[in-house]
Amino acid sequence: MKFKNTFLDQLEPYSPGEQPKTKNYIKLNTNENPFPPSKHVINSLKKFDFNNIRKYPDPSSLKLKEVLGQKFNLSGDNVFVGNGSDEVLSLIFLAFFRGKKILFPEITYSFYSSFAKLALGKFKTIPLEEDFSINLEKYNKTAYGIIFPNPNAPTGISIGYEKIKSFIRYHSDKLIIIDEAYADFNSFNCIDLVKKFSNLIIVRTFSKSYSLAGLRIGFCLANKSIIKQLLKVKNSFNSYPVDQLSEIAAINAIKDDSYFNEIIKKIKKNRVWLEKKFTEMGYNFIKSDANFILLKSKKISAKHLYLNLKSKGILVRYFSKPKKLSSYIRITIGSFIDCQKLVNFLKINDGDDFEKS
Amino acid sequence: MKFKNTFLDQLEPYSPGEQPKTKNYIKLNTNENPFPPSKHVINSLKKFDFNNIRKYPDPSSLKLKEVLGQKFNLSGDNVFVGNGSDEVLSLIFLAFFRGKKILFPEITYSFYSSFAKLALGKFKTIPLEEDFSINLEKYNKTAYGIIFPNPNAPTGISIGYEKIKSFIRYHSDKLIIIDEAYADFNSFNCIDLVKKFSNLIIVRTFSKSYSLAGLRIGFCLANKSIIKQLLKVKNSFNSYPVDQLSEIAAINAIKDDSYFNEIIKKIKKNRVWLEKKFTEMGYNFIKSDANFILLKSKKISAKHLYLNLKSKGILVRYFSKPKKLSSYIRITIGSFIDCQKLVNFLKINDGDDFEKS
Repeated sequence: MKFKNTFLDQLEPYSPGEQPKTKNYIKLNTNENPFPPSKHVINSLKKFDFNNIRKYPDPSSLKLKEVLGQKFNLSGDNVFVGNGSDEVLSLIFLAFFRGKKILFPEITYSFYSSFAKLALGKFKTIPLEEDFSINLEKYNKTAYGIIFPNPNAPTGISIGYEKIKSFIRYHSDKLIIIDEAYADFNSFNCIDLVKKFSNLIIVRTFSKSYSLAGLRIGFCLANKSIIKQLLKVKNSFNSYPVDQLSEIAAINAIKDDSYFNEIIKKIKKNRVWLEKKFTEMGYNFIKSDANFILLKSKKISAKHLYLNLKSKGILVRYFSKPKKLSSYIRITIGSFIDCQKLVNFLKINDGDDFEKS
Repeated sequence: MKFKNTFLDQLEPYSPGEQPKTKNYIKLNTNENPFPPSKHVINSLKKFDFNNIRKYPDPSSLKLKEVLGQKFNLSGDNVFVGNGSDEVLSLIFLAFFRGKKILFPEITYSFYSSFAKLALGKFKTIPLEEDFSINLEKYNKTAYGIIFPNPNAPTGISIGYEKIKSFIRYHSDKLIIIDEAYADFNSFNCIDLVKKFSNLIIVRTFSKSYSLAGLRIGFCLANKSIIKQLLKVKNSFNSYPVDQLSEIAAINAIKDDSYFNEIIKKIKKNRVWLEKKFTEMGYNFIKSDANFILLKSKKISAKHLYLNLKSKGILVRYFSKPKKLSSYIRITIGSFIDCQKLVNFLKINDGDDFEKS
């Protein structure tokens, strides 16, 4: 290869879960929401005047930022929006972690190491406890910042609000990034801490709880000086990351609180039901605060279980590494019908070869 | 500011043209297409099942890449797509120009210097000729690569096909990036050279000629080894940059050749008409191969002309720097009605204060 910057060798690209193009799987592999977006979202798209897409979107996504600011009792200047929370995270790494060190859990969203490498930053991973929980006391190392999802992915385990609050206060010299991609499935979030702490960034996505994965909208909340610096990086990268339809969809999603509450409630109910069934069937699992559960058979390997389910038309996520994670499959909490189908297969087939059964 | 990476001071963010939120301007300031997208695009969006946006898009945008490959007589593996051509350009800079030097014209798309700074690359700008044209002979400097738009923006002047071909062959040790954002308004493009030269990247956008600025889709064409490296960077930045609706819109736009040809023809016709009128009215202008024209009054400053037009509801682009450019306004070629309105104002008001007239 003639043109190749040597730094490309050090990159460690992220691999997202499969998006199958042919077979109609029960898709429990990428933590998508089983429910469609709000009717208000769908109506806003249906009645959109598509002639207008000849024009550029508002490069500052002002309306969306205002709606988000209001929603979270902050100003629009505390909000930064991007093309999915992955882009928001990438730009945070590019803005603040160039040549700097960031700490994150050994088992977590595996994109963090990719972001750090692209930004030419350094990172150190901190082991989880035996039970897969994060022990914040272990993060007492020299670093410019710390990032973790709460609840953590793919474990689903959450750290409590008060612990996080003390942690941010104690580490006031470090930039703390909490990735709240799954926080809407938890019983609390840390957004009110943005007003209290100038060293905190909360990252959020419309992909999971708002059923808008297909439109790519994410955002973060932080004090104005941090947002201002992110804007500088964004405007050195891409002026218009959020398109017209995504902005209108996100605004309408935020406004429909009652539908949001309804589907979150259903997903939590299905989570309770699944965990009960897993216990009854004798599977091991990690109790989750998110919209997915790590599950392990006592009889067959995770890879075997993944392949068996796939052969039956149920797609879940299998991680070949790290080792500690590779004994689990990650199952997204689907609709109740999907959960029932999953349980039926797990009930009959644990330990058997599905192909032969 | 507590958290601030010093490299942020060196950034030079790009400022896009205004997207006014209130007053209904005749918008001739951001090179948008005056015509709506193809009916096939609009129908594909109208009949889209919006329930599906709960799911992630295909992270590889395979269908779009195949359609683009077919269209340009290449393989899908020669295509890289992104969230607008700005993102594609950004990722090219991040992939290939980290710590490397790139040359580009002194007057050109002003985002290039922003991209280079974000990527920690070096750049050297090469002066235009007196008549604003690019003289490729001046690019005989040590560098890792060279980028220029063809036609150049915001001059609208194009370099001939044979000159470019010889240039790429001569500089086979350099990565040559041709930004063809406006090439569909020219009489030729350089896409067939992608098959001949492994040191060539052609960057393209759906924002101008395909009337899809509001949906953010761009792409580039190059040999497979270059595309592979871009994918590595993209997958270290954001897995799903192109959303579901943008992909379907772009696919349908590409398929409707006859509408595409029709609106390009109209814009070219309006360009001829405008240039004739400018000559008749005694304005100076740069003859353009793009969908915009640089115009200069013999009587009043460009800033004055810009403000006068704005006060009359016509928005054009004024560049306060570089100096050589600041004596011109850039006018996007609009619909025939918009062109007529523009000419009427220019005819009556050259040299007068519009506010008083």
